[in-house]
Amino acid sequence: MNSPQPSPQFELFAFWRTSATYRVRVALNLKGLTAHERIVNLDAGEQRSEEFLKINPLGAIPALVQPGHPPLTQSLAILEFLDEFQPDPPLLPTDLHGRARVRSIAAMLAADTHPLITPRVKKYLASSAASFDDAAWRAWQIQWFGTGLTAVEQRLAADTHTGAFCHGNTPTLADVVLASIVVMTRLFKITVPGTPVIDRIMQSCDAHAAFARAEPVRQQGAPA
Amino acid sequence: MNSPQPSPQFELFAFWRTSATYRVRVALNLKGLTAHERIVNLDAGEQRSEEFLKINPLGAIPALVQPGHPPLTQSLAILEFLDEFQPDPPLLPTDLHGRARVRSIAAMLAADTHPLITPRVKKYLASSAASFDDAAWRAWQIQWFGTGLTAVEQRLAADTHTGAFCHGNTPTLADVVLASIVVMTRLFKITVPGTPVIDRIMQSCDAHAAFARAEPVRQQGAPA
Repeated sequence: MNSPQPSPQFELFAFWRTSATYRVRVALNLKGLTAHERIVNLDAGEQRSEEFLKINPLGAIPALVQPGHPPLTQSLAILEFLDEFQPDPPLLPTDLHGRARVRSIAAMLAADTHPLITPRVKKYLASSAASFDDAAWRAWQIQWFGTGLTAVEQRLAADTHTGAFCHGNTPTLADVVLASIVVMTRLFKITVPGTPVIDRIMQSCDAHAAFARAEPVRQQGAPA
Repeated sequence: MNSPQPSPQFELFAFWRTSATYRVRVALNLKGLTAHERIVNLDAGEQRSEEFLKINPLGAIPALVQPGHPPLTQSLAILEFLDEFQPDPPLLPTDLHGRARVRSIAAMLAADTHPLITPRVKKYLASSAASFDDAAWRAWQIQWFGTGLTAVEQRLAADTHTGAFCHGNTPTLADVVLASIVVMTRLFKITVPGTPVIDRIMQSCDAHAAFARAEPVRQQGAPA
């Protein structure tokens, strides 16, 4: 007989494709934590449903719920929460400047890149306010993926703290976020040229089970 | 005789107007830390100079330098660094869910709102890629300031942890970032209606010397 599966520790409001949900999946995997996923179908606009807006008034996933507590939103805040909830293995170095470096790389992509390429921005730019067609949207995506990843590449290439991963030889918040952006560029078939350090770090991520298991195409709801 | 002024502990690459620089000024003030400001004139495009791109390849301020260490970039990472460098007074609560709540509110504005309204986005939208004129840019600003602040208002209004400040009765990272966005709306003369809780919290911030001293119009380089 199989032993019974333990109940998941969290509920994760999620969608197969999104970058920010991927980050939380990777962190849960790295920490050995489990979550029951509740699908919020972005293609059907469910993130703007009355029910979901009670979970997150910004109408964005992911949201992580620990039973008995209000929903946690914003992937950077959730990643920090998971690192404090389950400190082992750590997703931040112990020294202050190392922690700031990792958080800075994460924010270059989670704050200064990804929010530009979200469904609500697409919706606005496709409206009569800007009348973006598919080609204009794609140029926009390429512009901001390229700007963010190129800047991160320059930082990684210039700094001796860069190892097999962004900071040393174990995954940190920086890798979780970096991979979440690169995974999107693969989905969208966008290539940002001239990023050999990122390419090398992504080999480390791709070979790591916590990242591989979080791949968008392997999630519930992904197209066959 | 006057006693000599102690040397500043940090160098801050800064400009009088920007939201992200304001955050660091407020945090330094709250912590009783000092920084010598080095002006990066955004109106003259100095953030894209070869010299500054060595400090931050993303071409964005602020950057904080502690002598003997590489520059720290990204306001959220700098705020966390300052909170760890000088833990008193704390800018995060002690409980895990409180910390996540504060970081989430901060990220709703620093990650999901402000990056949309930066000079590099303005430059792209004003180019032939979108041909935004002043009115289209203003509508864009109103759209994203409104979306972010309205969502934060809903969270603050719905939660008993909200006090005189966003989380209880002392300033946290959430207030530092909230004020940094509201201060911008004032500069741009944009009003987001229906935010009574934010308005009340801003009264607390405006009355607090650490916030008042960081006001953009009071900084070096501001128009007379």
